[in-house]
Amino acid sequence: MPEQIPPRPAALRRHRDGFTWEGVERLAYKQDSAAPFRDVSRQILFSRPDLAGELRYFEIAPGGHSTLERHGHVHGVMVLRGRGRCLVGTRVDEIGERDLVTIPAWTWHQFRAAADAPLGFLCLVDAARDRPALPKPEDIAALRADPQVAAFLES
Amino acid sequence: MPEQIPPRPAALRRHRDGFTWEGVERLAYKQDSAAPFRDVSRQILFSRPDLAGELRYFEIAPGGHSTLERHGHVHGVMVLRGRGRCLVGTRVDEIGERDLVTIPAWTWHQFRAAADAPLGFLCLVDAARDRPALPKPEDIAALRADPQVAAFLES
Repeated sequence: MPEQIPPRPAALRRHRDGFTWEGVERLAYKQDSAAPFRDVSRQILFSRPDLAGELRYFEIAPGGHSTLERHGHVHGVMVLRGRGRCLVGTRVDEIGERDLVTIPAWTWHQFRAAADAPLGFLCLVDAARDRPALPKPEDIAALRADPQVAAFLES
Repeated sequence: MPEQIPPRPAALRRHRDGFTWEGVERLAYKQDSAAPFRDVSRQILFSRPDLAGELRYFEIAPGGHSTLERHGHVHGVMVLRGRGRCLVGTRVDEIGERDLVTIPAWTWHQFRAAADAPLGFLCLVDAARDRPALPKPEDIAALRADPQVAAFLES
């Protein structure tokens, strides 16, 4: 689904209070209500026809989480604000400001904000990319076989 | 010129004190000594064969500046640290943390750190891109025709 692109973005877009920017709309995380998530917003910082990559800023409110999903395209993530945890494959890590997370192709992943802090992060992605796939019951069962992953998913 | 790519970057690379990261080398800004610049370092945060975009972190020490140049590829810039000024075309702007700067194709541009603060910024770029062109004397003369640009270039 095409993202919303302003036809001629200004050369300079200043940041405003908090983590919002001039000329950047704060969007719903996903249009697809079948993908479970909680308290996530999305802002598209750079997306242009003459740029092969895109840079987005996602923010998960305290206690919220992104969708558990995987896809053929790669994510490059840098935490900008707050802290939380991420699941990449079967690995769970605490993450905080300026940490870098690489999500390889077809790797299950999910981000969870801390209970008492938001988790805001930049996400580098190819403009041309496939749609995410959601886990089937057997995928969830396989992930839950690892106690650390099970604890993460239930948190 | 190909950038240095670690063969298998770890999923998580934590930030260290200051603006450096585990497993990310702090590189010279440019190999090409013909391109004038002062006190700039470069770190490649995300660069992979399966990603069409790259994300780099540049840091200019207080009083330093990047090369004045232009090229066919586009830059998407977010300031992460400190403050300074940027020239984009014939426009000069003060920039600070989290401000966004878009540099369109074939637009002269340069970044200058403040005298008393560094200027650190993320730069989104296509992995496949052309080499920068340096200004000829007539390009410099044309840029200097604008008093604000002339003052920026002499600062």
